[in-house]
Parts: sequence; structure tokens; C-alpha cells
Amino acid sequence: MDLAQIHAAFRRIAPYTHRTPLLTSRLLDEFFGKRLLLKAEHLQKTGSFKARGALSKALTLENPKGLLAVSSGNHAQGVAYAARVLGVRALVVMPEEASPLKKAAARAYGAEVVDRGVTPKNREEVARALVEETGYAFLHPFDDPLVMAGQGTVGLELLAQAGRRGVFPEAVLVPVGGGGLLAGVAAAVKALSPETLVLGVEPEAADDARRSLEAGRIVRLTEVPRTRADGVRTLSLGERPFAVIREKVDGILAVSEEAILEAERLLLTRTKQGVEPTGALPLAAVLEHGAGLPGTLALVLSGGNRDV
Amino acid sequence: MDLAQIHAAFRRIAPYTHRTPLLTSRLLDEFFGKRLLLKAEHLQKTGSFKARGALSKALTLENPKGLLAVSSGNHAQGVAYAARVLGVRALVVMPEEASPLKKAAARAYGAEVVDRGVTPKNREEVARALVEETGYAFLHPFDDPLVMAGQGTVGLELLAQAGRRGVFPEAVLVPVGGGGLLAGVAAAVKALSPETLVLGVEPEAADDARRSLEAGRIVRLTEVPRTRADGVRTLSLGERPFAVIREKVDGILAVSEEAILEAERLLLTRTKQGVEPTGALPLAAVLEHGAGLPGTLALVLSGGNRDV
Repeated sequence: MDLAQIHAAFRRIAPYTHRTPLLTSRLLDEFFGKRLLLKAEHLQKTGSFKARGALSKALTLENPKGLLAVSSGNHAQGVAYAARVLGVRALVVMPEEASPLKKAAARAYGAEVVDRGVTPKNREEVARALVEETGYAFLHPFDDPLVMAGQGTVGLELLAQAGRRGVFPEAVLVPVGGGGLLAGVAAAVKALSPETLVLGVEPEAADDARRSLEAGRIVRLTEVPRTRADGVRTLSLGERPFAVIREKVDGILAVSEEAILEAERLLLTRTKQGVEPTGALPLAAVLEHGAGLPGTLALVLSGGNRDV
Repeated sequence: MDLAQIHAAFRRIAPYTHRTPLLTSRLLDEFFGKRLLLKAEHLQKTGSFKARGALSKALTLENPKGLLAVSSGNHAQGVAYAARVLGVRALVVMPEEASPLKKAAARAYGAEVVDRGVTPKNREEVARALVEETGYAFLHPFDDPLVMAGQGTVGLELLAQAGRRGVFPEAVLVPVGGGGLLAGVAAAVKALSPETLVLGVEPEAADDARRSLEAGRIVRLTEVPRTRADGVRTLSLGERPFAVIREKVDGILAVSEEAILEAERLLLTRTKQGVEPTGALPLAAVLEHGAGLPGTLALVLSGGNRDV
């Protein structure tokens, strides 16, 4: 993935997405003794960066009949929103046991939820059958270059916003689950500012990305990790994100559940921003690994859709 | 109070305060079937509008030795911040029984907390004795024209911000406790846009402002009201705010505790903004009285300092 692809994604999605603000907080800076730049993707359309990737892909499809996704999280809302932009239907496959709130959130963005008889095990199969039946386009949440390029626009924007303020982020911290956001941001940042470190952050309970980078191959978790960061409960990195991450990312930091909770709390009390646990991962890394990190850090607050 | 005083306050405080954003939310607008403009004072310095009033007053003092306030809430932080701007000390008188978190918050902004032997009953007396002893300047939280003028800058800013977007707020909803914010905003709004309604919002459990307006005189509560909106647990309006409110405010809406809680929740889930109960009062009024309100509303989200 190169910068031209991310620029192209930016041109496609810009009319339908927010340039989310790059927030600063004197209170947080004093607390940490660092200069923090917070890329506020919880204020993105649909409440997370996932709208970028879904739109980036959807806007390249020629007259799709509809969009189809497997997701019980932010990707569902991203795809529902992309379908609305295109004026087509969205089907979202979710396990019957998924929370009624998650189903309601997808429906609120206009998606039709398919859940009857769906289990965490058979959902991919259900989705394949539905694609056959309906002819709708399948949107993968991360293992797709067009989706990764869409997420990479987060990196483009944050460097431009920091630059306009004359601030140079020495490291960018990004949550990592399937790896689409981390790969996209790393591709953008390393193309524009090669000396800036790009670091992934994941929960200790789901440290497959760190182990994958060490092993030089994708390490899969054997069961769904128990972490409050529900946006990164993936079993492994996608192949395409891993190829980019392996080449461009400088390291992966794992954080405890306590640090995630404390980071959420700090964001709410000091900046009044309601960020979901996954979105608080980068600040959790500053809490636990701050001593080893440079003084000026950009943190990607990836989303704000807390499961209430 | 006239517009010139509010303009003067704006010129004094502008270098030390944020022009807080006027937020909009498609989700909230769809939910309510209205157009809402959210004046984000929870993102103000110190986390509430109180910094405006404290600075407005403090910046007119000639070489004060220090500042002194009686407050266990946002006014304490406002005064502490104003003292920091002036480079003088701040003393804040708080009951011994006030929450350790509130004391810590005031100290975090650099205030010295005086609480030994202080009770809710004797705190004014303690403060008077301290003013005698120290020669520090006493800053009232609302019953002061310079403080009211400072709070009025919220109204100036929100009309200018709405105007730049070509939006005309038909009504402005403002939390009311002691009345400094409501009086200041009403003075600004009625001077610049007389046809815009200005409405105060208070909890049903603390509906003294509504009763005062009806009675044509200040009605005092007999005990501290039980409401989650801790920013408006005052016993009555101040005399100076009441004189302005009586002349300029179109009405007072009272809201239930359930509506306040639901409004906080809506702000967090739909806009990702962490607003304190008092700051959610205007949205609570839209929940409970929306049918009787015009279509384009400006809501003053007065603060974000939740007692955790």
C-alpha cells in the first residue's frame, strides 16, 4: 500500500466524513509530562474510524445492489452508513446472542440485521450464502487494501493537523485488532514522516499482534480474548494488514485491563470525551509504558461507541 | 447590565479562555426532530463556564493580594484558575465534609483549600474572617455584575457562532441556580436578538427560580435541594441576577431527575461528550418540554466536572 492509494481514499471519502479534530489537553499534558495530540475518531460519523474504511471500499464498487458485512461492532455501523451514502441496502450478519443494543445501533444507521440461527461459528458461512443469494458486495472489516487505505486517512489528517500547528509527533499510537487501522496509519505516516515511530497497542489478554511481529508470522489466539476493549477481540491480524505492519510498524505495546479503564476515566474527567475502551488503548499505553516513549505523541482515539 | 459591559468582559477574558465550540449532532437532531446547537462549556478552561465570571471580575481588581471564594464546585476551580492568571494565591473555603475529590480538584488548579472546622452553616462567616485577615478579594459566584457580565460572554459567542453558520436560534436554554449564567446570557441575547426566547432550566426539586419569577420576588428554598444537578443546589437566585432575569428571561422550565439522567446519557452516547448533570439540564428540558419549544434551539452545556 502506498501513499497514492491513501490519498485516493481520502478524495473518495472526504465529502462524507468529518475531518475529526486533533484535541489537546493541558491537564493531560501536565499529568503525563508529555505533549499529547488526540485524534478524535470517536467524533467521526458513526462514532468510529470504521466509516472511513467502509466508505473507501464502497465508493469503488460499480452499482452494487447492496452491502453485506459480518460484524457486531463498529464495522456494522460503518457499512450501514456507507450503504446510506450509496443509496443501497445494508445487511449485517450478527450472532443471535449479540447484544440487543448492538443490533439496535446497526439498525439505527439503516442496516438490516440478519441474526436468526446465526452463531459465532456459522456467521461467515451465513454471510457467504447471503452474498450468493442477494448479489450484495461483501465488505471485510480489515483484510482489504481499500479498507486499509480508508483507515490510513486518519494518519494523513493527523500529520496535516499537527503540521499546521507546528507540532511534530515523535510517535503515533494506534489500537490494533485485525490491523486495518494500524496498517493504514503506518503506511501514511511512514511515507510522509519516516522518522516518526508507529506503535500498535493491544490488550495483554489479546497480545497476538505483538507475538505475530516477534514470530514473523501471524499468531492466532485460540479463543476470543477476554478484554473490555471489545473492538479488538479479533483472533488474529489479517494477512494484508500483517504484511504492511511487519514492514512499517516499529513495535506493539500490550496494556493491562486496569490501564484501559484508567485511561477511559482520564479521558472523561480531564477532556470530557467519552471514548470506548478500544479507543482508550493508546492512552493506556502512555500510562503503562510512558517512561519509554518520546515526549510528543499522537494517540488515535479510535471510537466512542461504548456498550451501555 | 448592558451589552457594553459584556463586550468589555469578553475583551478582558478572551486571552485566557476558550471560544468553546458550538457542537451539532445529526443523531440528536433526528432523535428530537429539532435543530440543536450545543454550546460546549464543558470544554471551557477548568471544565465549566465559571472560569469566565471569575476572570471577568478578577481582571478588574487592582493588584489584589489574592482571591478568596466559598465554593465546593466549579466556582472554586474558576477562581483558582483566575488567581493563576493573575499570579496570586487563591483560598477556597469548603465544608470539612465536602468530598475529597472536590477538594483535590480545587487544589489541582492551584487553590489552597480552607476546610478545618468549616461547616455548610459557618462557611460565609469563615470567609468573611479570612478576607479581614488576609486582605484577599472575595469573589461571589453569581451576585456580582462583573461576574454576570463574564458569564454573558457565553451568549455573545453562541450567537456569533450560530450567525457564522447562518443558523438562527429561536430559543436559548440555560441552566439556572444562582442565576449568574442565565442573567448574563439573557442580557447578551436580548440585546443582540430580542426575538430569541431565553429560558432557564432547573430541576423540579429546586424550582425556586420558576416560583420566584411567578411571585415577582426571590423565593428561597428552605433546605438544600436533593438533585443530581449539583451545580444548581443553591437556595435562591442572587438579587442582582434576579433583577436581570425578571426583566429579560421569557420563562423557567423545571425538569425531573429522570430526564436529567437520560439527557446525560444521550449526550454521552450520541455526541460522546461527558457533561455533568447540571450541564445536561437544557437537553432534559427538550426531552420533557420539547413539544412546546421551537425548532432551532441553542443549549448551554454549562460544565463537565462530574463528581466521580
